[in-house]
Amino acid sequence: MSATDEQAIRAVVAEWIDATRRGDVDAVLRLVTDDVVFLTPGQEPMDHAAFEAATRAQSTQGMQIDATSDIREVRVEGNLGFLWSRLVVIVTPPGASAVKREGHTLTIFRKCDGRWLLARDANMLVRR
Amino acid sequence: MSATDEQAIRAVVAEWIDATRRGDVDAVLRLVTDDVVFLTPGQEPMDHAAFEAATRAQSTQGMQIDATSDIREVRVEGNLGFLWSRLVVIVTPPGASAVKREGHTLTIFRKCDGRWLLARDANMLVRR
Repeated sequence: MSATDEQAIRAVVAEWIDATRRGDVDAVLRLVTDDVVFLTPGQEPMDHAAFEAATRAQSTQGMQIDATSDIREVRVEGNLGFLWSRLVVIVTPPGASAVKREGHTLTIFRKCDGRWLLARDANMLVRR
Repeated sequence: MSATDEQAIRAVVAEWIDATRRGDVDAVLRLVTDDVVFLTPGQEPMDHAAFEAATRAQSTQGMQIDATSDIREVRVEGNLGFLWSRLVVIVTPPGASAVKREGHTLTIFRKCDGRWLLARDANMLVRR
C-alpha cells in the first residue's frame, strides 16, 4: 500500500466536504463512480441517479451542509481501498435551525484511470 | 479477482450464519480478524473483546438467532475484499417473542494465512 494512494483517498474526502460546503454538485459527482451505491439504515440503496437528484435538490433549496471527518483508517490494495471515519454533519435549511448528525462511515474506493473514486458508502449517522 | 476468493468469502458468510444459529461462539470467533471492528448506527465501535463478550452473553442466555443473507456483491483485490448484503436477522430470546431486524451490511474481508476473515463490518439493520 502506497502512502500516495492513502493521501489521494484522504484528498477525495477533503474535496468532498469542501464541494458539499460550496454546494458544488458537479464537483461532488466527479468524486463518485458511475455505479456508486449509498447505503443507510432503514432506506433502500441510493444509486447514482438518485444521489444526483437528492444532491441537486439540496443545493437548489440552499441547504447549507458542513461536515467534519475524523478518518480512523485507510487501507488500499491495488485499485481497491476502504476508509473508516467518524463523521459529523450539520445541515442548515434556509431560515430553519441546524440539524446535527454524527456517527461512523465505512466507504469503498476504487481507482479508475488513476483517480480514486467513491464506489460504495455505508453511512451510520444518527441525529444527536 | 478469482472465483475461488469470492466463493471463499461467501462460504464465510454461510458458516457465520450457521455457527450463529448453533450458538457456537468459538466457530464465529474463528471467522474474524484479531483487530475486527463492528460499526452500527448510534453506537461506539465494537472491538474483538466487546464482540466476544456480547456473543458469549447471547449464547449463555439461550438467544436463538436466525439470519438470511442476500449477497448483492462481492469484490476482491489481492488480500482485500468487500461484501454488500441485505440481511434479515430474527432474534428470539428464551420465552419471549421474536424481534426481526433487516437492512444492508457492508463488510471488509482480509485474507490472512490463506483464509478470508471478517475485518470491518458496517451494519445498517433496523427493527421492522
